[in-house]
Amino acid sequence: MPTPSGHTRAIVASRVTGTRVYNPQGESIGHVEDIVLDKMSDKVMFVVLGFGGFLGIGERYHAMPWSMLDYDKERGGYVVTLSREVLEKAPTYELNDLLKQDGAGQAPSLDYYAKFSAH
Amino acid sequence: MPTPSGHTRAIVASRVTGTRVYNPQGESIGHVEDIVLDKMSDKVMFVVLGFGGFLGIGERYHAMPWSMLDYDKERGGYVVTLSREVLEKAPTYELNDLLKQDGAGQAPSLDYYAKFSAH
Repeated sequence: MPTPSGHTRAIVASRVTGTRVYNPQGESIGHVEDIVLDKMSDKVMFVVLGFGGFLGIGERYHAMPWSMLDYDKERGGYVVTLSREVLEKAPTYELNDLLKQDGAGQAPSLDYYAKFSAH
Repeated sequence: MPTPSGHTRAIVASRVTGTRVYNPQGESIGHVEDIVLDKMSDKVMFVVLGFGGFLGIGERYHAMPWSMLDYDKERGGYVVTLSREVLEKAPTYELNDLLKQDGAGQAPSLDYYAKFSAH
């Protein structure tokens, strides 16, 4: 979640998707591939962070809590306050696997990130 | 919310956006223009339903609760259980106005639809 800055708290999903994501050192760690919603409630289940790959091949995905994305206006993207080592050890998935079984990647991912969340 | 049917409860926002929306009579009442998320929580604030207009001019928007959209596989779109009369009297907005002031269209719209919600 961004630090309150006086801006509207509403944002459309289409603007979130495609936004670049950085670590605190300013290195790009990927982009928001999509946002997973829960059909049975009004919750955002998690955000799909895409990274790696080349020319569309080999891209991998993290399932990351929406609350971990802090928008940084100067950088024009989200900052995720995790070190590179932590991210490298995070669970990664094929995109389809994230959605199967009610967002299969969610539980192990959210457990993983909960340890590091400053919020 | 859809009737439980054994399918995963997770869906990506990019698949929701653009989906056609019908009333119970099977008439198209618009499409999902976008999904508005709350930056400060993990909630879907509301769905933006676009309707009317011609060649991109004159389109109007409803702010509708996510829970009102029931996916109908046969129709290939969402069904909203509201009569045409109810929809015609619902608040409508320009798209930008919906996002200003923390989703300005949300409160009056949600109050309006709450009266008719069967859930």
